Amino acid sequence: MPLKAAILGAGAIGAGWAARFLLAGWDVAVHDPAPGAEARLTATLEAARRSLPMLSEVALPPEGSLVMAPLAKAVEGADWVQESAPERLDLKHEIWAEALKNAPQNAVCASSTSGFTPTALNGGKGRIIVAHPFNPVYLLPLVELVGQNTAKAAATLHRIGMYPLEIASEIDGHIADRLLESVWREALWLVKDGVATTEQIDEAIRMGFGPRWAQMGLFETYRLAGGDGGFAQFLAQFGPALKWPWSHLTDVPDLDDALVQKIATQSDAQSGHLTTAELTTQRDNNLVALLRALKQQGSAAGKVLNTHDKSLTPPPPPPGPEPLVTLRRTIPVDWTDYNGHMNESRYGQLWSDAGDTILVAIGMGPDSPGSQGASWFTVDNHIKYLAEVHAGAACEVRTTILMAEGKKLRMHHEMYVGETLSASCTQLLLHIDMETRRSAPPAPEVAEKLSKYAKAHSRQQ
Amino acid sequence: MPLKAAILGAGAIGAGWAARFLLAGWDVAVHDPAPGAEARLTATLEAARRSLPMLSEVALPPEGSLVMAPLAKAVEGADWVQESAPERLDLKHEIWAEALKNAPQNAVCASSTSGFTPTALNGGKGRIIVAHPFNPVYLLPLVELVGQNTAKAAATLHRIGMYPLEIASEIDGHIADRLLESVWREALWLVKDGVATTEQIDEAIRMGFGPRWAQMGLFETYRLAGGDGGFAQFLAQFGPALKWPWSHLTDVPDLDDALVQKIATQSDAQSGHLTTAELTTQRDNNLVALLRALKQQGSAAGKVLNTHDKSLTPPPPPPGPEPLVTLRRTIPVDWTDYNGHMNESRYGQLWSDAGDTILVAIGMGPDSPGSQGASWFTVDNHIKYLAEVHAGAACEVRTTILMAEGKKLRMHHEMYVGETLSASCTQLLLHIDMETRRSAPPAPEVAEKLSKYAKAHSRQQ
Repeated sequence: MPLKAAILGAGAIGAGWAARFLLAGWDVAVHDPAPGAEARLTATLEAARRSLPMLSEVALPPEGSLVMAPLAKAVEGADWVQESAPERLDLKHEIWAEALKNAPQNAVCASSTSGFTPTALNGGKGRIIVAHPFNPVYLLPLVELVGQNTAKAAATLHRIGMYPLEIASEIDGHIADRLLESVWREALWLVKDGVATTEQIDEAIRMGFGPRWAQMGLFETYRLAGGDGGFAQFLAQFGPALKWPWSHLTDVPDLDDALVQKIATQSDAQSGHLTTAELTTQRDNNLVALLRALKQQGSAAGKVLNTHDKSLTPPPPPPGPEPLVTLRRTIPVDWTDYNGHMNESRYGQLWSDAGDTILVAIGMGPDSPGSQGASWFTVDNHIKYLAEVHAGAACEVRTTILMAEGKKLRMHHEMYVGETLSASCTQLLLHIDMETRRSAPPAPEVAEKLSKYAKAHSRQQ
Repeated sequence: MPLKAAILGAGAIGAGWAARFLLAGWDVAVHDPAPGAEARLTATLEAARRSLPMLSEVALPPEGSLVMAPLAKAVEGADWVQESAPERLDLKHEIWAEALKNAPQNAVCASSTSGFTPTALNGGKGRIIVAHPFNPVYLLPLVELVGQNTAKAAATLHRIGMYPLEIASEIDGHIADRLLESVWREALWLVKDGVATTEQIDEAIRMGFGPRWAQMGLFETYRLAGGDGGFAQFLAQFGPALKWPWSHLTDVPDLDDALVQKIATQSDAQSGHLTTAELTTQRDNNLVALLRALKQQGSAAGKVLNTHDKSLTPPPPPPGPEPLVTLRRTIPVDWTDYNGHMNESRYGQLWSDAGDTILVAIGMGPDSPGSQGASWFTVDNHIKYLAEVHAGAACEVRTTILMAEGKKLRMHHEMYVGETLSASCTQLLLHIDMETRRSAPPAPEVAEKLSKYAKAHSRQQ
């Protein structure tokens, strides 16, 4: 028998919860009296169905069932009741009064509230806990849990692929929203005072500390700035800035010995098992992987890096009898696998990119006008893996055109690390009409350019 | 003639600058009178030489030359002078007095100061600008530029692959550090008051809003929370929280019509060309790519997702006459290329993962005890690409063991999307002794398990 979640309120947050449970195989009953609620729910579910399965290297379980229902009916027999109503305490009290009357005694009863404490929600003593997620709920794992008896909720959240953070003390805004609210308030001053635009503030975040925070957060990042002396050293260096006018938040705690000691001890417990060098490597590997992910999307810092790559890309080699150098690059750390070497799949990127160099040479490739209506698709690769390759290796690909006839192009790529032949690929491409996405002969000027390369190589064979 | 950078102060920031210029082909002269400066510089340069080239799909230019030099000598003939001394104004004034006397008239003169304004640095009027980077300087692109005539500096930073953010108004802490300082001060309260530990605060960041900020920043993220109504709608919803006790930063600007209008207009200029649906897709694609990058590193949210994947992974299929279902998964958006379909390289991941399912079945693979001293390396793949595959497609890999003899294992993998055979691969693996990293026969119990699979399939052929 599948588990059942009752979703009370289906805005962006509630709909995200619905998607999380549904795609984890739970049955979901949604209650939302607002006009258009079902259409909004459907839109979020579609986004979640598209993206959430992409996070996984394996198939998700079959979806549960989904119904819209009146509140009392929705919570009936539920294992988890999640309220995501607007941030008004009177409204939340009203919803919970009816929900608690109708929900099973052992159901987890949780509110998505951004700011209210469990005490406020319960009006004193009661079973409602805070389970505060982050938009988009269907992708980001964090759920802040506050209240009595959060262990059962935590176990369930782990099982549906989320990350429960159990917070021992009640405070308005919990943890994350307190941080967000502080930075938000400071950002409003920057805009109001004309120091920066909304876009400049976003760039200041995503080009700089954003990628740091995506993988380490604040304290572990700063610990590195302190070097081998741990967090106490960082505080000695940057503590004085607390008294400087660097923020509108001027109500700062005294950095006395007790606080320094508390932070240093907690930071040691968190990160002290790693040396500065190990933490540096971990941070740098993560940043390389994150920035490369953004390159693939052409977004944020990735856009900057793609533009820079273009400025460094040499012109394609002219036709000639020798194998053509079609690629020179370093093997990045995100291309390696559990054997500690470059994974078999990533060699394919070398052949793909080396092939693109030839396509650019004949007036096609990723950006050329020729690629508007036509492209080349790879249909056959025969790859030989000849020597292990590790992250950081500088490699070169040398390409021979074996055959270019009509819509067929056959190339042989050799990957060298130094003078070691480390892998090779014989690659067959077909010229494609991008309207029909079927093979078709290339334009005469493309065929002519290509034949110059092919002839230069055929003389050698 | 290569360009020359003078680096005054070679702590983490100065050394990062040295690496940026050096790896962009500039000659670099470093001045740092502190004991051990050269050793620290070398350590940072080594980290940069390892990681920075990994960001690029092409080779970086040859490194420039590197010398340690007295201050006057270091700035001689420099095109760019970068001071990264400790955050003491008197010290910076002293260094710049000597630097300005000896640097060429047309050199860019920039300080890495986290907080001082150009006016403070110049003691009134002068040519020193702020060029504030972010640690690790050799990976993160952001440089905040403040001061008179920053255009030349901006053009140079673009050329070395960084992202200059030109800020029109002077303010202590510029932009990013004001945001960081606010959140830092709030975080200190959370630790001091015992609400959260340093580790909990880091998890609250990196499991939640960190990945959002790495790709969109603050305002574009919140715009999405407002939906189709743009930023004004978000402010109507979340504006009241400014008055609530969600932060120690209680000195908040009045959210009057003028400020609402200013923010809404700036946000429209920044993001108004995209619909809510388009922004949602952009955000979700970026988050999928970022979270998957963290999975590959096994770090932060990626660790959570890997653990969840394990819980969803079915046991390997038992030996039997039919092809074995070795993988079921969805094609993620970061596997596609400029042709709008799955890139040829990423099929290799399917064969690699499908092969791992067989290895797990015979007691080896990524996590098994058998993998401690031995593994299987792929030495030959023959891949046929039969139909285009797009992001979001659910696929299945069916595997036949063609041959298992001694240290050789040959498999045939077929990838299906629905019942369409979309690609296939004949894969040859060799059993490897991980001590010598050379081929060797598998252990008898492994060979025996494998032969059961092979025999079940050979009866069918």
